Amino acid sequence: MTNTGITNTGITNDTNAGTTRTVAAYAALTPKSPLQKTTVPRRAVGEHDILIDIEFAGICHSDIHQVGEDWGTGIFPMVPGHEIAGVVSEVGPGVTRWKVGDRVGVGCFVDSCRECDNCRAGLQQYCTGDGGATFTYNAIGRDGEPTYGGYSTQLVIDEGYALRIPDNLPLDAAAPLLCAGITLYSPLSHWGAGPGKKVAIVGLGGLGHMGVKIAHAKGAEVTVLSQSLRKREDGLKLGADHYRATSDPATFTELAGTFDLIVNTVSADLDLSAYLGLLRADGTMVQVGAPEKPVTVNAHALLVGRRSLSGSMIGGLPETQEMLDFCGEHGITAEIELIRADQINEAYERVLASDVRYRFVIDVSTI
Amino acid sequence: MTNTGITNTGITNDTNAGTTRTVAAYAALTPKSPLQKTTVPRRAVGEHDILIDIEFAGICHSDIHQVGEDWGTGIFPMVPGHEIAGVVSEVGPGVTRWKVGDRVGVGCFVDSCRECDNCRAGLQQYCTGDGGATFTYNAIGRDGEPTYGGYSTQLVIDEGYALRIPDNLPLDAAAPLLCAGITLYSPLSHWGAGPGKKVAIVGLGGLGHMGVKIAHAKGAEVTVLSQSLRKREDGLKLGADHYRATSDPATFTELAGTFDLIVNTVSADLDLSAYLGLLRADGTMVQVGAPEKPVTVNAHALLVGRRSLSGSMIGGLPETQEMLDFCGEHGITAEIELIRADQINEAYERVLASDVRYRFVIDVSTI
Repeated sequence: MTNTGITNTGITNDTNAGTTRTVAAYAALTPKSPLQKTTVPRRAVGEHDILIDIEFAGICHSDIHQVGEDWGTGIFPMVPGHEIAGVVSEVGPGVTRWKVGDRVGVGCFVDSCRECDNCRAGLQQYCTGDGGATFTYNAIGRDGEPTYGGYSTQLVIDEGYALRIPDNLPLDAAAPLLCAGITLYSPLSHWGAGPGKKVAIVGLGGLGHMGVKIAHAKGAEVTVLSQSLRKREDGLKLGADHYRATSDPATFTELAGTFDLIVNTVSADLDLSAYLGLLRADGTMVQVGAPEKPVTVNAHALLVGRRSLSGSMIGGLPETQEMLDFCGEHGITAEIELIRADQINEAYERVLASDVRYRFVIDVSTI
Repeated sequence: MTNTGITNTGITNDTNAGTTRTVAAYAALTPKSPLQKTTVPRRAVGEHDILIDIEFAGICHSDIHQVGEDWGTGIFPMVPGHEIAGVVSEVGPGVTRWKVGDRVGVGCFVDSCRECDNCRAGLQQYCTGDGGATFTYNAIGRDGEPTYGGYSTQLVIDEGYALRIPDNLPLDAAAPLLCAGITLYSPLSHWGAGPGKKVAIVGLGGLGHMGVKIAHAKGAEVTVLSQSLRKREDGLKLGADHYRATSDPATFTELAGTFDLIVNTVSADLDLSAYLGLLRADGTMVQVGAPEKPVTVNAHALLVGRRSLSGSMIGGLPETQEMLDFCGEHGITAEIELIRADQINEAYERVLASDVRYRFVIDVSTI
């Protein structure tokens, strides 16, 4: 077993000499195949590891992309799931942050090099160490073994990569905060959404609905820009001040030069230059989803008003904890539809049809 | 005569009832035609106006684009020139900032609405008032008359739109600061080029060479990214610490994740995603030239590292003055080739052939 890049924390994996365990999971055994019940190994609880009994796992659109190998070759069997909420059930001898019974979440990554500038700055998601951040599933861990995600009953991870879920948040509706929540919280926070700021959220889906709640709680004036007015009532209930249809050309003329920040949650091709025209001077449009095709913008739309087109990918460990604490203070969780494990494949179909308000969460006790 | 948007400053144009004057100029009489000697009218010196005896005018690539109608229909006869240096020779009765003999510069705009958020914030270049900023030439002024630029012997403008040229800077080499200088100073300043920062300047032409000088004077570590190493010696002399060829693929692998800021002065199509890969986390690539075709980027290159693709267009009045003062303190001017007015058409050919190190400046006494 290699011990890559973690010597700086004095961590050793000596106690990993213990036995691995086998846990129940839902996995795609081959690319694009339906998920089915199986088992996967979990490493023994090491010196600084914790064992988490997973209670709930959110379904993220990116789970479907990865099972489908839309973003490149996958590692199979693949157990998706990076919106994980559960309870600590065992701690390694060197663990200082957690005790059995603690309510914890795990997001999109379970390790990183811990030594690069980004890791040191708490931006582990942008780890530039060998291989980058170790993603929660569909990756090879720093121990050389494949990682398996949250559609499973138990998970062993280094204690530093788990986050505390505030006591007042139910674990099922809190699970999606670990990806959808931080994906929106991070850009809203980094680009200063708050009182006096006008923020637009493009798309009201799993990501967008979290954006509306968080931007509203941060005190910004929030506009949803959605293809149609179909979900208008929902949007206003979630905290939006305005709701405009992007299929109506008047939206782009009437709102020209309005927003300080636009967060685009839509991965489909959009006319980004038109959206850039909705920004004030020094405004920023942030992509949080990655369209498969390159995006095209008119440079003029950037030059006039010193506008920016930026990207943001989830968040680092300190900011993810900050987000969970913020959501605890404001009572923010995702709007969810709780499903049994045997409904995962059906849920995937419904996500692809945009037929979910607004996040499916798997009750892991049904695996 | 309309008096658009300037009532807030108490300005009236009553004294414009005086006589207009006719001044010698070089103009394109029709689109794409060679420039030739002619005369154009200048308004009488109004209450808050100053008359400037123009001594030097820089030739900007955008002069050629506008004469050629590359960016849309032009107003002819067209007298280009927005890098203007001269001396005040008459002041209106209400003028408080200037006296006869003052050394002044005029840049890309000569008026703006003065009331919009951007004007109030000193970002007149992004004026959102009716018609936006009034450009120095190829525009209709707020008095309804066409504007004529610096390839002429005299100019009348509102005193608030002239800038002080520090005494230690020669007027000929200072003229290009009014466009090329501020175009680079503004993004370098806005995005924090300074000690401890790694800055890349893409392209070593009229704009790029100013970028190298200014970024170096601001204390940043400067790298020129140029197609070839042809101008390497120049670049290092101007203040670059490193000079790399973008035709060499090793440049993109070896410098991956290096820069805090990249300023792209090249209007030609570049593989922007490759350049974005050269940025550190939170780095910004700024376009200061507008390619005619839309630019294409891989959104992934923005997401990983929270990078930004931004635009910046010249600078506002307060920042342009700040730039001139900074250049005065650091003894910065452009590298110029001084020409006679009858060499303008030849100079245009040479600009198109990238055969100038680094800016042509017209000696206006030869008009």
